[in-house]
Amino acid sequence: MHFEIPETMKAMTLVAYDKLALARVPVPKPGPGEVLCKIKSVAICGSDPKMIHGGYQFANWPPYYPFIMGHEWAGQIVALGEGVEDFQVGDRVAGEAHVGCGKCENCKRGHYTVCLNYGHDGHDGGLDLGHRHYGFYWQGANAEYNVYKTSALHRIPEGVSYDVASMCDCAGVAMHGVELAGVTPGGTTVVFGPGAIGLCAMQECKALGAGRVIMIGRGNKLDKAKELGADICIDFMKEDPVQRVLELTNGVGADEVMECSGAADSPYKACQMVRKTGSIAIIATYHAGDVMIPANTVNFNEIRIVGSKANPNVSDKVLHFFATSQINGEALITHRFPLERYEEAVDIFEHKKDGSIKVVINPEMEA
Amino acid sequence: MHFEIPETMKAMTLVAYDKLALARVPVPKPGPGEVLCKIKSVAICGSDPKMIHGGYQFANWPPYYPFIMGHEWAGQIVALGEGVEDFQVGDRVAGEAHVGCGKCENCKRGHYTVCLNYGHDGHDGGLDLGHRHYGFYWQGANAEYNVYKTSALHRIPEGVSYDVASMCDCAGVAMHGVELAGVTPGGTTVVFGPGAIGLCAMQECKALGAGRVIMIGRGNKLDKAKELGADICIDFMKEDPVQRVLELTNGVGADEVMECSGAADSPYKACQMVRKTGSIAIIATYHAGDVMIPANTVNFNEIRIVGSKANPNVSDKVLHFFATSQINGEALITHRFPLERYEEAVDIFEHKKDGSIKVVINPEMEA
Amino acid sequence: MHFEIPETMKAMTLVAYDKLALARVPVPKPGPGEVLCKIKSVAICGSDPKMIHGGYQFANWPPYYPFIMGHEWAGQIVALGEGVEDFQVGDRVAGEAHVGCGKCENCKRGHYTVCLNYGHDGHDGGLDLGHRHYGFYWQGANAEYNVYKTSALHRIPEGVSYDVASMCDCAGVAMHGVELAGVTPGGTTVVFGPGAIGLCAMQECKALGAGRVIMIGRGNKLDKAKELGADICIDFMKEDPVQRVLELTNGVGADEVMECSGAADSPYKACQMVRKTGSIAIIATYHAGDVMIPANTVNFNEIRIVGSKANPNVSDKVLHFFATSQINGEALITHRFPLERYEEAVDIFEHKKDGSIKVVINPEMEA
Amino acid sequence: MHFEIPETMKAMTLVAYDKLALARVPVPKPGPGEVLCKIKSVAICGSDPKMIHGGYQFANWPPYYPFIMGHEWAGQIVALGEGVEDFQVGDRVAGEAHVGCGKCENCKRGHYTVCLNYGHDGHDGGLDLGHRHYGFYWQGANAEYNVYKTSALHRIPEGVSYDVASMCDCAGVAMHGVELAGVTPGGTTVVFGPGAIGLCAMQECKALGAGRVIMIGRGNKLDKAKELGADICIDFMKEDPVQRVLELTNGVGADEVMECSGAADSPYKACQMVRKTGSIAIIATYHAGDVMIPANTVNFNEIRIVGSKANPNVSDKVLHFFATSQINGEALITHRFPLERYEEAVDIFEHKKDGSIKVVINPEMEA
Repeated sequence: MHFEIPETMKAMTLVAYDKLALARVPVPKPGPGEVLCKIKSVAICGSDPKMIHGGYQFANWPPYYPFIMGHEWAGQIVALGEGVEDFQVGDRVAGEAHVGCGKCENCKRGHYTVCLNYGHDGHDGGLDLGHRHYGFYWQGANAEYNVYKTSALHRIPEGVSYDVASMCDCAGVAMHGVELAGVTPGGTTVVFGPGAIGLCAMQECKALGAGRVIMIGRGNKLDKAKELGADICIDFMKEDPVQRVLELTNGVGADEVMECSGAADSPYKACQMVRKTGSIAIIATYHAGDVMIPANTVNFNEIRIVGSKANPNVSDKVLHFFATSQINGEALITHRFPLERYEEAVDIFEHKKDGSIKVVINPEMEA
Repeated sequence: MHFEIPETMKAMTLVAYDKLALARVPVPKPGPGEVLCKIKSVAICGSDPKMIHGGYQFANWPPYYPFIMGHEWAGQIVALGEGVEDFQVGDRVAGEAHVGCGKCENCKRGHYTVCLNYGHDGHDGGLDLGHRHYGFYWQGANAEYNVYKTSALHRIPEGVSYDVASMCDCAGVAMHGVELAGVTPGGTTVVFGPGAIGLCAMQECKALGAGRVIMIGRGNKLDKAKELGADICIDFMKEDPVQRVLELTNGVGADEVMECSGAADSPYKACQMVRKTGSIAIIATYHAGDVMIPANTVNFNEIRIVGSKANPNVSDKVLHFFATSQINGEALITHRFPLERYEEAVDIFEHKKDGSIKVVINPEMEA
Repeated sequence: MHFEIPETMKAMTLVAYDKLALARVPVPKPGPGEVLCKIKSVAICGSDPKMIHGGYQFANWPPYYPFIMGHEWAGQIVALGEGVEDFQVGDRVAGEAHVGCGKCENCKRGHYTVCLNYGHDGHDGGLDLGHRHYGFYWQGANAEYNVYKTSALHRIPEGVSYDVASMCDCAGVAMHGVELAGVTPGGTTVVFGPGAIGLCAMQECKALGAGRVIMIGRGNKLDKAKELGADICIDFMKEDPVQRVLELTNGVGADEVMECSGAADSPYKACQMVRKTGSIAIIATYHAGDVMIPANTVNFNEIRIVGSKANPNVSDKVLHFFATSQINGEALITHRFPLERYEEAVDIFEHKKDGSIKVVINPEMEA
Repeated sequence: MHFEIPETMKAMTLVAYDKLALARVPVPKPGPGEVLCKIKSVAICGSDPKMIHGGYQFANWPPYYPFIMGHEWAGQIVALGEGVEDFQVGDRVAGEAHVGCGKCENCKRGHYTVCLNYGHDGHDGGLDLGHRHYGFYWQGANAEYNVYKTSALHRIPEGVSYDVASMCDCAGVAMHGVELAGVTPGGTTVVFGPGAIGLCAMQECKALGAGRVIMIGRGNKLDKAKELGADICIDFMKEDPVQRVLELTNGVGADEVMECSGAADSPYKACQMVRKTGSIAIIATYHAGDVMIPANTVNFNEIRIVGSKANPNVSDKVLHFFATSQINGEALITHRFPLERYEEAVDIFEHKKDGSIKVVINPEMEA
């Protein structure tokens, strides 16, 4: 298989906070251990509008302008860099955003999304210790092509479309939190936040044997949760979710809580509704940064709160769940746009217009 | 061996918030599976003055008046109830405060300090499902005798005095938190709070292979930490502990933090100074109840926060460390009083008068 | 609800190796913390014929004659002993075989099926430390009634029949091994032995997210595995299972192996077909007692072998899976007999006559 | 700091089974991410004579002739390859034998000593996926210089000599097994085999809080164990170790067993002497390859057997223990030789002549 690679490509670039520009830029060249991918689908993540608006200044995202964002993607390998042996041209692949340095203590222990050499990727002329954070700190997928280290890639199973596979990162973020908190077979699991990550978490908990998944959210976003298999939906505008969960569990509380809402009071409520020895995964980030927790309850009830960063070592698992429809990927995708209409796509996604859940960009689609 | 058991005994009773009274009460009789113990030593715990002042109303401690408090104790078995086969009259024993119901899901999984039937002990004429919380919710050790279920008891190793053994519960509370957080061999562990629990935690971390233990506190309470082996002491009145810990660890952060201070800002600082993937044990309770945590840091750095409730399954471990002096028990005991002077003892302990760390009551001591 | 309790009852008793006798014996009376149950269904377990033939002499099963066997059962509570508050007369319940002493180190840590006071149940006039092993070391369920401690009991969910619920112990034995070995979501799990335990293990692995379950057995017993959802069946008489599993996994090996066959060479093969860092659960017992393992492979490939004893803390999980049909209970039951025809039932079960998988005794069925 | 690098160097090469030859070979050049080290000390490992005699044909060690063995080493960095930023010329370093590919599922999870791409290092003209196994499958340290990837290196703490640091790999192999099995604080740990690995394991168990370490071996090799702190030594020629361990633990058994002997009957005995729910680490390899285990005991007692491969993620831990003398490194070194006398050194080590425990080669020593 052989692909013609053009010299330049279209890319959607962030040139200042709240300022995007379609540009024509060189197609990057794969270095040793890297491959060039044709981007087929990029899904918009909740962090994308936040980054566009300047909400990640504290994290130094983006690191420079103009910057090509986009980290939930799937595509096809069209060229190999030197020494690449684990993938072939033509392979259909889904991407992870993180590649660790591979040498720090955290990477060597398998925790590569919390690499101790984060940011040392040489883009600023400093040390390149090998770290990459595609779409956040290193050039991303909002373009016709991008270069990736092969350790960021996973083959897409047969029967899974590029559009669905582009949610590998999104479903993986949920899955990592779910694995860290654990799922009690036959037990009661609560998920806060019926957005794309929460809906993935919900379906993953079911796939891992949860007896009953309770989704907490509001309004008609709960409809999708119901449609996708939530056993019980609680609209927190209409009833007290803590009270309700305790009633549903005979006062014992939920076995575990997946906090995917990012609402400042969710961690507090999670502590109040989880059982003694229960676990809470913090899968979201918070506008305020700081949140309150009932510390005495954490102590008295021996609650475990686990921060979950991105999606290490779970991509093949969620791609499998897409293949079996244990995560219904198609049902999550509500809109598709060409790259040229990225701003409109973000607007629809961010403001949940028109029932939007997951909005996917197809760079090959005609504008 | 045989002991004469009197009909009545001295007991120090709480009769109202902030009101204690020495009383003469019947010596209790051991039921099936229980033993009568002669109380030799009772150590005062930080929770004792708090309970006296009404600080545990939220937990319903004490459950009635007059109430005999005291839960850190050691003594000698002087009579056996029906069917007791695992202990003998004459055995020297140290006590745990908690006995779970043995039947709920948590007890059956080994988490008996967070028994789901907490409080169902029949003292109020309700169900007696078997739970006991001696000195908090059930008659305690501030007396000449008390009755205990044998599952609350542990034999004292040779060479460990009753006074030291009375700190089994205190050292055990620290140990359980330390086990939940884990200790990295050769790593850097931070302990907040150089009180009795913090000093035990510090020594336990060393005994479990920590490379360097950093104690954070203030003033001359840090002297005892230094004396007992803290590698580095940080006086938070004189320098920023977060800054200092990061400097000491080349910016990486501590491997784990044991929060034993109960200061409202300690959990927040703990999150700021612990490494990516690090753990924080919440071993304290908080005056305010609620505390703030930097939730985005918890998420970004994949921090694990674990509430630690009391001391399940660790008593033999800490009694061993007392026997080997890996926990220097004698150095923790600064004062001893007879039962009659309990109020004075509490005052000295609570207000840290006269360099007090651990204050022990000896009911057999002449007043 | 009230039930008339007769003075005597029918019971099937083992009176010598290979000698059973139907007898009329007193209905036992529940002591404190115990209940009397009307036995509705007793499933025959692989250990039953083995015990009848004298194959458990090394374990001292049965402990005396005549002995009432039977440990996989479900029934209804018809009378309460003193102090029972957690169950009511009329409750439909399924039983576990094990009740630990509740006081030894293992019980206090949640490992009550490996109670350190095993056998100290007072049946021989010795100490009664509280241990029970119903149907093995203490009177079992092959009768119209039996007495149980409530900690051995679990409520049967709506929609689950007594016959299906009687397999709670069988499915639980599988589930505990599965939990100890772990299941890799989306991964490849091998199960050795398509008997009742293996068929439960297979379905549980699927319910916990396994991507592909491979059943290894021979002949038409594999048909049932196929019917119940095995992704791949390997007949070891027709092909080399090690070779085949390696082929199916591109040489990597299976993520975990559940050894439910009891064949002496299965643990060896399991080590050869499991991936580096993979896990093997030993859920079976072996005629020979000793088996060979390739120790250098265990070392080189960092294999974890876990012995799994009975079914602690899993009953509610498997009863849930019965309720959702994630374990298809009805499909496992091939034969039903009255108590009077127990020998015939054992013969059919043991010799796998007439396609037998699980054979259930209904003491209320007319002979 | 700058070092003159010669063109050629001395190296001890294996040229056929049981045939060694001193040779003059080119000094290798560091590639990207690699450094050139001056070898200061190489310790002889039990696997070295075994490899010389052809005992690792099954593992394909060595992969070609002439081959430079030697994998337990310490030295100084004298030149940096391209892009090396994490180490500097002049750094004193100790080496690990394994560098994983960094891309396979096992490496990404932190299990780099069981890399799924083992052997794909390109030495044979095949794929170089990045794996290295220095001294086994890739050129080792029995020379004046060698090249290493930096991820194989750890800085030597102040006060630890090169000779002691060369045992980093040896102590690390023990430590990994100890971590996999776990150590019960205050508990009873058994170590089989008072060789260098066993003596390290013994001291590590003490450093991690074991209450009592029992060493099993024979003859005067037990003297060194006693000298280094073994609480109890059992000479298996004089008494039955299973019987003795059970007596010492009141019939309960040891909490965990570290099998470092490689004797074919040790795993069996380990199963017989470990407590219910106890763990056994298989840290050795076996001449026979296959060993017998009492499978019913494994099942009945819920024993966990864990294979331990090499020393991932523990080097800094053991270097710390060397620095604190919690592992007494100097006491383990009984002999030192120049490179020219390697054969004599191996003979003394292998046949335990002259009280030898650890024999170290110093390539800079005059012959």
